[in-house]
Amino acid sequence: MRIILCGFGVVGQNLVKLFDSRSEDLYAKYGLKPRVVGVFDSKGSAVDQSGLDFGKLVETKKKFGTVGRYADTQNQMSGKDMLKEIKADVLIETTASNYKDAEPGMTHIISAMKRGMHVISVNKGPLALAFPSLLELATYNQVMFKFSGTVGGGTPILDYAKNSLRGERITSFAGILNGTTNYILTNMGTGVSYDEALKDAQDKGYVEADESLDLDGLDAAAKLVILANWIMGMKVTLPDINCTGIRKVTAEDIKKAAKENCLIKLIASCNKELTVSPRQIPDDDPLCVNGTLNAIAFTSEHSGTQTIIGKGAGGMETASSILRDLLDIREEIAGD
Amino acid sequence: MRIILCGFGVVGQNLVKLFDSRSEDLYAKYGLKPRVVGVFDSKGSAVDQSGLDFGKLVETKKKFGTVGRYADTQNQMSGKDMLKEIKADVLIETTASNYKDAEPGMTHIISAMKRGMHVISVNKGPLALAFPSLLELATYNQVMFKFSGTVGGGTPILDYAKNSLRGERITSFAGILNGTTNYILTNMGTGVSYDEALKDAQDKGYVEADESLDLDGLDAAAKLVILANWIMGMKVTLPDINCTGIRKVTAEDIKKAAKENCLIKLIASCNKELTVSPRQIPDDDPLCVNGTLNAIAFTSEHSGTQTIIGKGAGGMETASSILRDLLDIREEIAGD
Repeated sequence: MRIILCGFGVVGQNLVKLFDSRSEDLYAKYGLKPRVVGVFDSKGSAVDQSGLDFGKLVETKKKFGTVGRYADTQNQMSGKDMLKEIKADVLIETTASNYKDAEPGMTHIISAMKRGMHVISVNKGPLALAFPSLLELATYNQVMFKFSGTVGGGTPILDYAKNSLRGERITSFAGILNGTTNYILTNMGTGVSYDEALKDAQDKGYVEADESLDLDGLDAAAKLVILANWIMGMKVTLPDINCTGIRKVTAEDIKKAAKENCLIKLIASCNKELTVSPRQIPDDDPLCVNGTLNAIAFTSEHSGTQTIIGKGAGGMETASSILRDLLDIREEIAGD
Repeated sequence: MRIILCGFGVVGQNLVKLFDSRSEDLYAKYGLKPRVVGVFDSKGSAVDQSGLDFGKLVETKKKFGTVGRYADTQNQMSGKDMLKEIKADVLIETTASNYKDAEPGMTHIISAMKRGMHVISVNKGPLALAFPSLLELATYNQVMFKFSGTVGGGTPILDYAKNSLRGERITSFAGILNGTTNYILTNMGTGVSYDEALKDAQDKGYVEADESLDLDGLDAAAKLVILANWIMGMKVTLPDINCTGIRKVTAEDIKKAAKENCLIKLIASCNKELTVSPRQIPDDDPLCVNGTLNAIAFTSEHSGTQTIIGKGAGGMETASSILRDLLDIREEIAGD
C-alpha cells in the first residue's frame, strides 16, 4: 500500500518505527505491506516510488532536522507539489492542528481526496472547521476518511462508540478530552497554584506551543466537534461549541469543590447543547481521572453509562491509531 | 429471523420487550425482524412457527409464572424436545449459569449447533467449562457462536478488546468482573462489617441464589475464562483459574489498605497466570470503581493501558448485548 506522509514529527516518526518493527506481523496477519513513497516536513521532502527506508528516514530527521536530506541532493519539493505529482493510495496527515484556517492540513486532505486517495488524519484542525464538508467530499470522491487518532490518541474512543455500541442509541456523553488541562487541574487539587501548575506542565512538555489550544479549551472543543458529528450525526463545526477554558479556575473554586467531595474538571459534553467548561464532578465518579489521563462517559438508552479511560496523547499511542485506520482501509480495499 | 429462547427470566423478558419497543427501528435500520418461534422456562413452553406475541408472553409469565400457559392448553414440551423439533435460525440461551456440569445450557447449545443453528449465550456455565470445545463445535457446524453478554452485561468489553483494539497486541489485563462482591467490599470500605454488607447486598437482590458463585469468585473466574480464550487465544477452562473469593477479607485488611491510600478489590487478572483474588489497589487507579460497577483495564503493546467501566449486569443491559449479537448474525447472514 503506497503512502504519502504529511508531517514528520513525533507521531510520524513513531509510525514508521511501528511499520518497521511490525512489518512481518502486519504482512502475515493482515496482508498489509506499507510502502511510504513520500514524506514531507516543513523544511523538505523525501520521495521514492519503490518505498523509502524507515530507519534512514528517522535517522535523517534526527541528524538534519528534516527529511529533505534523505537523498544526496536536498529535495525541496513542497507538500502541495508532492500531492499533485506522486501517486499513492493513502495520505496520512500529521501536521499540527490549527483552528484559524486549518492549513496546511486542509489543503493536503482536499487535494488527496480529489485525486482519489484515502485519507487518515490525526490533525484535528480540518475536522474541527469543516467536518461535514470533508465527509461529503470523501463520499463524492468515493474515498475513505479515517481519523481515529484525533480523539483519545491510542484509546479507540470513536470506534467504541460507533462500533462496539452498534445497535444502541447514545443519548448523551461527557468527557475529559484534554490531558494537559487535566494535569494542571489535578495538580491544583493538591494545593499548587495555577501559575505553578502551568509552569510544571510546560516544563514537562505537555503544553502546546500555542498554549491557548489547551488552556482556552480549543483542543477539547475540536474533539467535541468530531464526536458530535461522528457519533451523534450532528453537522457542527468549532463555532457551534460553547467554550470556556481553565484560565479563570481559582484555588478557591477547587477548595469549595473539595468540601463537597468534588473535583473541578474541564468537561466537554453533548447533551442538547455542546459545551466545554470547567465543572464540579463527584470525586468517586468514574470520569474523575487524574494526571494527563482522558476519560469519556457515554450514556446509552439500554446499556447504561459506560466510561472509557486511557492516555489521550503520545507519539506511539497516536501512531497505533493510524495503524488501526490503515488496517481498516486495507480490509475494505481487499473486500472490493 | 426465527429464534428459540431458552429461559424466560429477567433477561429473556427484557429481550422480548426490547424487540417489541424497537421493532420498527430494528427493521428499518438493520433489516432485522426477530420472530420468536419458541420459548421455554423450567415449567413449560410456548410455540408458534408464525411468531409468538411479545406482549402476551410477558403477561403470561407474570400471571402464571410460566410461558406454558401462553396457549389455551398448557404446553409441556421440554426444552430438549423443542430443540429437536422446532425449526429456527438462532438459539438464545439465557438459563442460569451452573459451574458443576453447565446443564441444562450445555445440552441446549450443543443440540442447537448440531442442528445448524447459530447460538447466542448469556449463560456463562457452558463457556466456563468447555469454551475451547464449544468454539470447535461451532466451527465444525459452520454456525456463529456469540456471547457478548457473558462479560460486562451491556458493557461491550469483549467487543472492545477484540475489535476496537484490532491491530494491537494486548499483553495483560485485570478487572473487577463481579458487581456483587464489589458492592460488598465498597460498603466494607465505609466501616460496615462483612456480614452486614452481605446482608444488605442480599436484601437488594444482588446476590445469586447460590451465594458461592459471587462470594467464592466463581462468577468472576468464569468471566476470566471467557476473556482468556476469546481475547488472549488461550485454551483454558474453569479449573485453570487460581481462584480465591472475598469471604476471608476482614475489616483489618481494609483498614490496613486505607492507610496506604488503597482499597481492597476482587481482581480477576491475566498476566502469565490466571488469577481471581482480593487485592490492594491504589484508590486513584481508574480500576477502583465503587458500588456494583465493573471495570477492566487492558494493557496493550502500543496504546498503553485502557480502562472500561460500566454496569456489569442488569436485565435490560444484558438484553441489549443479545440484541447486538443478533444484529451481528443478521449482518453476517445478509453478507453471505
